[in-house]
Amino acid sequence: MANIRMVGFDADDTLWRSQDYFDAAQRDFEAIIAPFLDGGDARTAERLYAVEKANLAVFGYGVKGMALSMIEAAIAITGGRIGADAVHRIVGLAKDLLRHPVELLPGVREAVAEVAASVPVVMITKGDLFHQEAKVRDSGMSDLFRRIEIVSEKDVPTYRRLLEEFAIAPDEFVMVGNSLRSDIAPVLELGGWGVHLPYHLTWVHERDADLAAGGRGRLRSVASAAELPAVLRSIMAA
Amino acid sequence: MANIRMVGFDADDTLWRSQDYFDAAQRDFEAIIAPFLDGGDARTAERLYAVEKANLAVFGYGVKGMALSMIEAAIAITGGRIGADAVHRIVGLAKDLLRHPVELLPGVREAVAEVAASVPVVMITKGDLFHQEAKVRDSGMSDLFRRIEIVSEKDVPTYRRLLEEFAIAPDEFVMVGNSLRSDIAPVLELGGWGVHLPYHLTWVHERDADLAAGGRGRLRSVASAAELPAVLRSIMAA
Repeated sequence: MANIRMVGFDADDTLWRSQDYFDAAQRDFEAIIAPFLDGGDARTAERLYAVEKANLAVFGYGVKGMALSMIEAAIAITGGRIGADAVHRIVGLAKDLLRHPVELLPGVREAVAEVAASVPVVMITKGDLFHQEAKVRDSGMSDLFRRIEIVSEKDVPTYRRLLEEFAIAPDEFVMVGNSLRSDIAPVLELGGWGVHLPYHLTWVHERDADLAAGGRGRLRSVASAAELPAVLRSIMAA
Repeated sequence: MANIRMVGFDADDTLWRSQDYFDAAQRDFEAIIAPFLDGGDARTAERLYAVEKANLAVFGYGVKGMALSMIEAAIAITGGRIGADAVHRIVGLAKDLLRHPVELLPGVREAVAEVAASVPVVMITKGDLFHQEAKVRDSGMSDLFRRIEIVSEKDVPTYRRLLEEFAIAPDEFVMVGNSLRSDIAPVLELGGWGVHLPYHLTWVHERDADLAAGGRGRLRSVASAAELPAVLRSIMAA
């Protein structure tokens, strides 16, 4: 029997909607710069992602870095023809993204509450500290979580440090999330359990994941949050 | 005798230089937009600070929010006349700020090491998670600290939560920092001790502080990091 002593939940696109807003912001970005293009295929999305990816090492994840990358990409893609008003609208996209209300995904509150009634749950989320804290407050779910950890990267060293702080062994830990790359692969690699709860949208950056063959026996997949309590019980009975 | 069981250190402008870089970026900003002004007094610094302050509630602290505020302020101050190249240079200011090497202040490493030899030390710093983590890594000092806490605001609720997590009573805790507002006032209010280590530059936002009259007996002030170990010994003997 697996002795599960803690369950971690990702937040963006696991507890609440996130990628929808980023995708909408990207469509708005394309509309903002379109008037400054000569027509034809400017490969806008592709060029924006190239700038974002190149800037990840200096900006990290989050809306503000995205907006600065959008401004940089807009200048490059339009050959410097973008006007001040359009730049201002890109800053406005960032403010809108940072202020949108949190929209919980269906069944999430009930599922987390049910899990939390039998085993301590923690939230482990990546991104901008200020924005993530605002979303946690707005979600009304913070009381359910024993700890809320906002980290800059979700990789093996980060999960190892957190589990040490929690005094939990990897095989006593289950991580639930939508990203194979950030939520599942590093936890399986450490010897922990993963429950994949896919979201209908995934940022291209989060799509690649190497799942170590040895860890696949500790991976489960569910189609909705409502299935989580039963899957966790099945892991505990494994 | 005060039973001091933990000493907290602020980071920016306490352990390493920070405000110098922000001030330099602000001068660069003024130079970048100057060509788009009609001459005369555009009150650039004042108007930039007004935009930054208005945006704090949505952007939080840190370089990326500052850069977005600079871009917004530049568009307003120049009446939309700023060019794409100048906007691009403002994005470049942010990248430079995020990448500058960490420059420890004189005597800091020795003072923290001496304190850490007798009582656990933690770092409590405010701002952008990604940038602060990069500075901690670059400082080479992370091994001295039992915990490194990057928070979005340094107020009474934040210090209360951290002290609860550390299982330390307020009167067992000393906070060392350059900001009366962020490092000293909230800790004194909780009943803890403060050691003010002033820096020659202070962001206008950090200058105001209400020090509760009752807490002043638990406030010390030093002129340099080298004095810290002796002042902490004097608190422990108080």
